[in-house]
Amino acid sequence: MLVLVVYDIPDDRRRLKLSTCLEGYGRRVQKSVFECFLSLEEMQKLHQKLQRLVKPTEDNIRLYWISENAFSKTLTIGSEFPQPPPSFYII
Amino acid sequence: MLVLVVYDIPDDRRRLKLSTCLEGYGRRVQKSVFECFLSLEEMQKLHQKLQRLVKPTEDNIRLYWISENAFSKTLTIGSEFPQPPPSFYII
Repeated sequence: MLVLVVYDIPDDRRRLKLSTCLEGYGRRVQKSVFECFLSLEEMQKLHQKLQRLVKPTEDNIRLYWISENAFSKTLTIGSEFPQPPPSFYII
Repeated sequence: MLVLVVYDIPDDRRRLKLSTCLEGYGRRVQKSVFECFLSLEEMQKLHQKLQRLVKPTEDNIRLYWISENAFSKTLTIGSEFPQPPPSFYII
């Protein structure tokens, strides 16, 4: 269902590379938070892909799985509820 | 189970107020990401409390519910798996 990707990456070049990659998977909802509507298998593949883009000794990335019934429990302040992306996302 | 709080708050004072508040609920895992082990009811109360601390026109806060079986699907790079906090957290 929904995969949340949150990251702290000090290096500008690597951070840009990561966000550019993530834009092909979902929607940026905060500076370093993306919402990606993926299957579990796609989440695991994305995790492997991101591992090749960053330096684990310096960068911190976390991917969380949000199941269908948990999705509706999302609460926001100052931004809208998570929106499934248009279907054109090519995975 | 696990409540993820992610935020973008440009104002330093408000951001500090928020993170100080969140430290009483869980653990900071990235600059503006907290993991809080709470019930659904506590999540809703926290959401109301945070609404009183920030400006929705300028600030962006999102709270996600991560159920028990989704929790084990979390994937990380450069940081450890989510850790339930020590039981002394007073809610």
